[in-house]
Amino acid sequence: MIYFDHNATTPVLPEAREAWLDAVDRFVGNPSSPHRLGSRADKALTDAREQLAALLGCHALDIVWTATATESNNLAIAHLANSLPPEEEIWISAIEHPCVIESARRWFPERHRLIPVTAGGAVEADWVNEELKKLRPGAIVVMAANNETGVLQPWREILGLCRAHGVPFFCDAAQWLGKLPSVGLGDCDFVSGCAHKFGGPKGAAFLKVPERGRLHPLLVGGRQEEGRRAGTENVAGVLSMMAALQAREDRAASGIAEPMRLRADFETRLTNELAQVQVLGTGSERLWNTVSVLMPEADCRQRWVVKLDKAGVAVSTGSACASGKEEPSHVLAAMGFNEAEASRALRFSSGWETREEEWNALLRTLVEAVKV
Amino acid sequence: MIYFDHNATTPVLPEAREAWLDAVDRFVGNPSSPHRLGSRADKALTDAREQLAALLGCHALDIVWTATATESNNLAIAHLANSLPPEEEIWISAIEHPCVIESARRWFPERHRLIPVTAGGAVEADWVNEELKKLRPGAIVVMAANNETGVLQPWREILGLCRAHGVPFFCDAAQWLGKLPSVGLGDCDFVSGCAHKFGGPKGAAFLKVPERGRLHPLLVGGRQEEGRRAGTENVAGVLSMMAALQAREDRAASGIAEPMRLRADFETRLTNELAQVQVLGTGSERLWNTVSVLMPEADCRQRWVVKLDKAGVAVSTGSACASGKEEPSHVLAAMGFNEAEASRALRFSSGWETREEEWNALLRTLVEAVKV
Repeated sequence: MIYFDHNATTPVLPEAREAWLDAVDRFVGNPSSPHRLGSRADKALTDAREQLAALLGCHALDIVWTATATESNNLAIAHLANSLPPEEEIWISAIEHPCVIESARRWFPERHRLIPVTAGGAVEADWVNEELKKLRPGAIVVMAANNETGVLQPWREILGLCRAHGVPFFCDAAQWLGKLPSVGLGDCDFVSGCAHKFGGPKGAAFLKVPERGRLHPLLVGGRQEEGRRAGTENVAGVLSMMAALQAREDRAASGIAEPMRLRADFETRLTNELAQVQVLGTGSERLWNTVSVLMPEADCRQRWVVKLDKAGVAVSTGSACASGKEEPSHVLAAMGFNEAEASRALRFSSGWETREEEWNALLRTLVEAVKV
Repeated sequence: MIYFDHNATTPVLPEAREAWLDAVDRFVGNPSSPHRLGSRADKALTDAREQLAALLGCHALDIVWTATATESNNLAIAHLANSLPPEEEIWISAIEHPCVIESARRWFPERHRLIPVTAGGAVEADWVNEELKKLRPGAIVVMAANNETGVLQPWREILGLCRAHGVPFFCDAAQWLGKLPSVGLGDCDFVSGCAHKFGGPKGAAFLKVPERGRLHPLLVGGRQEEGRRAGTENVAGVLSMMAALQAREDRAASGIAEPMRLRADFETRLTNELAQVQVLGTGSERLWNTVSVLMPEADCRQRWVVKLDKAGVAVSTGSACASGKEEPSHVLAAMGFNEAEASRALRFSSGWETREEEWNALLRTLVEAVKV
């Protein structure tokens, strides 16, 4: 099976697998236990916290370990609801992950505004700039890179606007981390990420919170994570996550020219061979691994996925979390596509290990699928 | 290091380790993805759900995968708060895990009553029986076995009372599962448990919910778990958890006579050699692995733990989640012990693999620690 669904989840890296096994052997205690085996497990978590803080550029104690990015995002939005004055609203981009949008609906039902995006799928920083002149919201929430289109979002620019206006800024970096260097993300007040998007195991994630800020916990009844998230910590999961992230950071540091070239070649040949296929977000900076397209037609929305699946290529219609839903993508809707257009969306997302032959096989399979 | 802190966490079983590795290799997809690799991962979760349901005696779809028992317990109590009429109270035992008590304080601040326990540490079913004649609460919450004392709770009897009065019953079985057969637990409306208490990995847990009952999710923004818990499922964690539980169920099915004998011998010799040591809950049925004692004196509450730690034996002062806190155990307080007495508490909790020599070493170390 040729795998082009890395934005949904990535295979576990050998480094992460080794780190998990090593942690299971070496850190058998409960980090909260008062004996040496407990202290050793706790120390391992502390070391991992420092490692992540160094990568992001923040303090180790700003890191809260969680189980999923969904939990991190729910936790951050719930915290904002519990800590902001009751009249303040939050602004979230119209293309956030469903867990951010649903959390906003739950916790800020009448108090959240959606920040518009361009036809190219980028959040409109100008809109934010203009609106901030009129009103200071309680927080602004913009993801680092979109999961469906791969479009990089102007988070640094919006972070700057937030700083200038004293507005807390929350950045969901789940799709950015492990693909691009994480340096600078620690400047955001809140940052979320999860291991299984970059070669770590499922079930390990984090939320970076403001320095010296306390956090209203979503899960209570234990003093773990400085009382910010009760429950026994997933020590092996955290260590495995950090091994994966470190490997990816090292890889990203050596540049993205080669994967960018592979993707560009693919896109050029795809549009040459299948003129009816439209690549999304071409005018915007995008993750090196993601190609989101509108296919020529859609008899039923799963058709292309099924055809490609039968031919041995795994691709997605969009967000894995949204798949199975009947509704068209809210991301494409925000970019101005109608329901019929959005129903033709297909996403190819590669990994660091994806080879040129695999891109070639994807292309061949697509061409055959369209021509049959 | 001789390990007598299994109630805090257990080492990962070889079966669980193998299952994790196998899952990481075989189920690389996101269970929500629309291709074969996604379906395979989803099928693995479904199989695991059926396996757990068969053990507990319930329907597969009554199982919701979570990350920790703390999450499961928070989720169950939050659901009760969101679904019960606003005037109904819940009754929880005075010796529940802190995550249940804190959740009750959060969600039922003025509406929860504590069910008393005997001096032997068992929840008073008679109290429940009498009070149910006066008032029908919205739910009753009693754990299966206490983490600090190991005392088995009359959950079957209280479940019967709940059935007779039409009251939903929630049983936290975190300490029971893997030590005693889980059969019958599925009759409870809600049941929680987590992998790392029985040889599975940290970060995998479940909540059993009522049949055909929906659940108000704590985490939103994804359709996983039938909309009851958003977030990518920890496939390898779940499969590893089930491998561990199955191994423990098989072991428990062959009887607990031998570990009971080891513990009884230890207790007899302990009280013979150190007459000042008081074993707690001796009049009650207890888990075969747990010995909770009051030591002769306490200069500072960590003293015995530190002495034993230096001698190479890992024990606990009580709940790992509570350790580090200055407050004395709420469990011992509910049993009628004063603060000075509770400060002398020490807990030894063995595992299925604990050998007679280890019990002997614990005894020798204790005797030496007291005599020095």
